[in-house]
Amino acid sequence: MTTAEDTVLAYWDACEARDWPRVAALVADEVVYHLPQTRERIRGRSAFLRFNQEYPGDWHVTVTRVAGAGPRAATWITCTVDGADQPAVSFFDLDDAGRIAGITEFWPEPYEPPAGREHLVERYAPATPG
Amino acid sequence: MTTAEDTVLAYWDACEARDWPRVAALVADEVVYHLPQTRERIRGRSAFLRFNQEYPGDWHVTVTRVAGAGPRAATWITCTVDGADQPAVSFFDLDDAGRIAGITEFWPEPYEPPAGREHLVERYAPATPG
Repeated sequence: MTTAEDTVLAYWDACEARDWPRVAALVADEVVYHLPQTRERIRGRSAFLRFNQEYPGDWHVTVTRVAGAGPRAATWITCTVDGADQPAVSFFDLDDAGRIAGITEFWPEPYEPPAGREHLVERYAPATPG
Repeated sequence: MTTAEDTVLAYWDACEARDWPRVAALVADEVVYHLPQTRERIRGRSAFLRFNQEYPGDWHVTVTRVAGAGPRAATWITCTVDGADQPAVSFFDLDDAGRIAGITEFWPEPYEPPAGREHLVERYAPATPG
């Protein structure tokens, strides 16, 4: 049986390969992609594929973590664009046919920690994220 | 059987209740908490509890999504601090005893979308995140 984890790993593999027919086969006709940080929403397979096909830069994705069960899964990917790494986190909702019907994605940016917790934390170098 | 999803939902429930003994019982002695955006790391149950106990503001957490299987789970929470909502995403690794041994957490901030994709996206109001 194909699990939600299998499906989302196949999705990232197909994205990395720029295998757009395979990406298309993994998502529902009416897929909705949400980017809460920018409050952007993309509706439908056609617009969703174009968004990915047109995305600028020589990007590559590696799955750092996946967790899922039933019709839900989440991934933490490391996206490398022109040599710089950035994490992204995605929550997937699958439909009854096992296709990806909803994706909510976050692209967290680095920031400086607030003062007042230095007694509890250590800081690590950019090269050792986990 | 307690699943990873059960455990992380209990964790957030205990945090929301400020039930620190219950939080302590859910995490491993050597729990490690990572914040990749600030490259901060907190080691051990004692420091981890203090970090949460000392966290400023009248914060409240609601779980928006959970996904997990085996020893891994991910949550997307909505954290409300003094009336403002912010999402946070956490990946949990459980040890053989079912305790939370690792947490990696992201706090994605709003940003303005880059130009060039307006033909594919619609923007939604802050009140309807997903």
